[in-house]
Amino acid sequence: MKKLRMAIVGLGSRGGGMLHAFYSKQKDIEILYTCDEYEDRAKDNAQFVKEQMGNDCRWTLDYKEVLADKDVEAVVVYTSWETHIKIAIDCMLAGKITGMEVGGAYSVEECWELVRTYERTKTPIMFLENCCYDRSELLALKMARAGMFGEIVHCSGAYSHDLRNEITHGKENRHYRLRNYLVRNGENYPTHELGPIAKILDINRGNRMLSLVSMASKSAGLEAYVNANKDTINPELIGKKWAQGDIVTTVIKCANGETILLKLDTTIPGFYNRDFTVRGTEGSYFQAFNGYLSGEDHSFNPVGFIRENLDSAEKYKDMLPSQWLNITEEDKKTGHGGMDGFMCRQFIDRAKSGEEFALDVYDAASWMVITALSEQSIAMGGAPVAIPDFTSGEWTRRQRKDVL
Amino acid sequence: MKKLRMAIVGLGSRGGGMLHAFYSKQKDIEILYTCDEYEDRAKDNAQFVKEQMGNDCRWTLDYKEVLADKDVEAVVVYTSWETHIKIAIDCMLAGKITGMEVGGAYSVEECWELVRTYERTKTPIMFLENCCYDRSELLALKMARAGMFGEIVHCSGAYSHDLRNEITHGKENRHYRLRNYLVRNGENYPTHELGPIAKILDINRGNRMLSLVSMASKSAGLEAYVNANKDTINPELIGKKWAQGDIVTTVIKCANGETILLKLDTTIPGFYNRDFTVRGTEGSYFQAFNGYLSGEDHSFNPVGFIRENLDSAEKYKDMLPSQWLNITEEDKKTGHGGMDGFMCRQFIDRAKSGEEFALDVYDAASWMVITALSEQSIAMGGAPVAIPDFTSGEWTRRQRKDVL
Repeated sequence: MKKLRMAIVGLGSRGGGMLHAFYSKQKDIEILYTCDEYEDRAKDNAQFVKEQMGNDCRWTLDYKEVLADKDVEAVVVYTSWETHIKIAIDCMLAGKITGMEVGGAYSVEECWELVRTYERTKTPIMFLENCCYDRSELLALKMARAGMFGEIVHCSGAYSHDLRNEITHGKENRHYRLRNYLVRNGENYPTHELGPIAKILDINRGNRMLSLVSMASKSAGLEAYVNANKDTINPELIGKKWAQGDIVTTVIKCANGETILLKLDTTIPGFYNRDFTVRGTEGSYFQAFNGYLSGEDHSFNPVGFIRENLDSAEKYKDMLPSQWLNITEEDKKTGHGGMDGFMCRQFIDRAKSGEEFALDVYDAASWMVITALSEQSIAMGGAPVAIPDFTSGEWTRRQRKDVL
Repeated sequence: MKKLRMAIVGLGSRGGGMLHAFYSKQKDIEILYTCDEYEDRAKDNAQFVKEQMGNDCRWTLDYKEVLADKDVEAVVVYTSWETHIKIAIDCMLAGKITGMEVGGAYSVEECWELVRTYERTKTPIMFLENCCYDRSELLALKMARAGMFGEIVHCSGAYSHDLRNEITHGKENRHYRLRNYLVRNGENYPTHELGPIAKILDINRGNRMLSLVSMASKSAGLEAYVNANKDTINPELIGKKWAQGDIVTTVIKCANGETILLKLDTTIPGFYNRDFTVRGTEGSYFQAFNGYLSGEDHSFNPVGFIRENLDSAEKYKDMLPSQWLNITEEDKKTGHGGMDGFMCRQFIDRAKSGEEFALDVYDAASWMVITALSEQSIAMGGAPVAIPDFTSGEWTRRQRKDVL
């Protein structure tokens, strides 16, 4: 068995977590480098690889050292939001098969550069959007493919995750969210909900996102949280004003007429919820209720149709991809209940086989750019902003490619 | 006991329903007129009043006949959407205490005319927004007043109601929704969710709505429904194209920095849901889960906080107004579980006592205008549209007035 020779760039909470939970357990890869801007992270994780995987693993603070090494075939990038695209571009230029962790873009231009670099180099790049591999999103995808929604007209999703502690206490105050929440205001983390929606709606493959509007609520959550936690908080944060609105609402219009609603909700008390919803003329899927609603006529009921009458989505679980049908206890430990492992397994398999990635550079660019465009729209009072066609027209004829 | 001498204008499903369920059972009112553009409705309901209430009740097709009668003290208007404001204006000009059923406005100008007519005549007018009197919305209002949300940053609501049968089959094809759905595209029914939100946020009383953006999905639900029901549907509807988008998403920005999200969802399969939600720095209310979430730190839980951990809102039911705490079986039969009766009881009581209505002409104008502005925003690709200040600055000093 030929091993894929990999490097991991970025070993904070996410990169380190994936190394420990998943990569270190794979028999068909070797981790040649651990790289991070912080020496402790790079060094400790190189030691961990040596102990767990048995191969020599170097550590470095400079990812260009990794890229210069001819032995490295593939690089996975788990760095700060600000550097995902820049480093991924350098990886492609160096000819390394690239896996890029999610985040939002800072400009439209950097997304174009990502796309153009891919088109010039043809270096394979996969966008590591793990929620596209999660159970309920995949069940909804399979329902869509089976026609159970009829014509889909609207999808919605959220990133509702109480991150007040992570943002303000952080990992040794190194967390990239902190600096972003202080000075930026926008839909800063769209891909967990947008990715699975985009796959269902065939975005960049027969459909595309045309424009968006975005509005932000005031920012009150983090200041209140800092004030309530003065004893444990970084004293520099006391009295600080935060640019990031607590709730950011974004509405996207698609070429085929669908609308997509996104909600960012990370700085006030809430429960974790991606609120993934698909609405069509013949049926709907509601993740928050784990329910499927058929297209039959509910009009005759004078008060409509209550949620208790939803079919449990579990009734349709046989439609799930085999990975989820046959999930093992080992799979479940790979991260977020299994989806992280299924995704990274696919990255490794296709890096070796050469099969096209289902989450490609056009997906990365068009999903990440929502952040930059949302900032623009908010700054202009909710003005509609055009979403670039990163495929330059190829979306009209590109064929569907589902993740699983 | 002096009886309030009333007339009912508009005796379709809503007006007739309220007459049968509520008005005919009140001992302290007399219904002097039933008026409708259709003779059968006017006539049959006059007969019903005579039989049930024992007083002579005239019927007419011309509401101006009602307004010319000096004996009539109060008029409640339950006509088609197109005529609520016009008839309410004529009622005020005639000096009749006015109750106006909800709906959306067709222009900004007619909302101004409503306001100016009130300001010139000072004829009392109440906006009959029944959901402001419903149980869960009032519980959330009381929670807000008790500070249980901390600083509120965002509210959302929906009108999710599968109306496909009503729109396309209708009541003898007289239904006003039909003609509106064929040619208009906007948030055509905002007040059921916006009203309770506006009361919580002190709109027109210390706060106001500044601007909105609105986007509509394609229209596919009604055409699919007509095609699936060709045997029973009005044949004129077969092959018709509908202007109304299936899902309309509207985001409103308020002077105090809050955002409000509204969703119209009436033409595809769905369950009845107003999805009333209040989000603050110290707590949240989720009607869809009947749950309250406290402001404690949920960040430490690595997957956040699941909805099963929500407090049941029932834990706080003692905070409800006395009407809901002491609701009787009779109350429950007055319409929509009781809220209609509580609202109309207040209309009658205050029409007699002269106490200021809590849902006034400024509420009516600013809530109804959302429809006209949503149409404008959608027509302009989601462009932000300014929401008029119908109080002309008085919102900065008007005092809070809650409904119950």
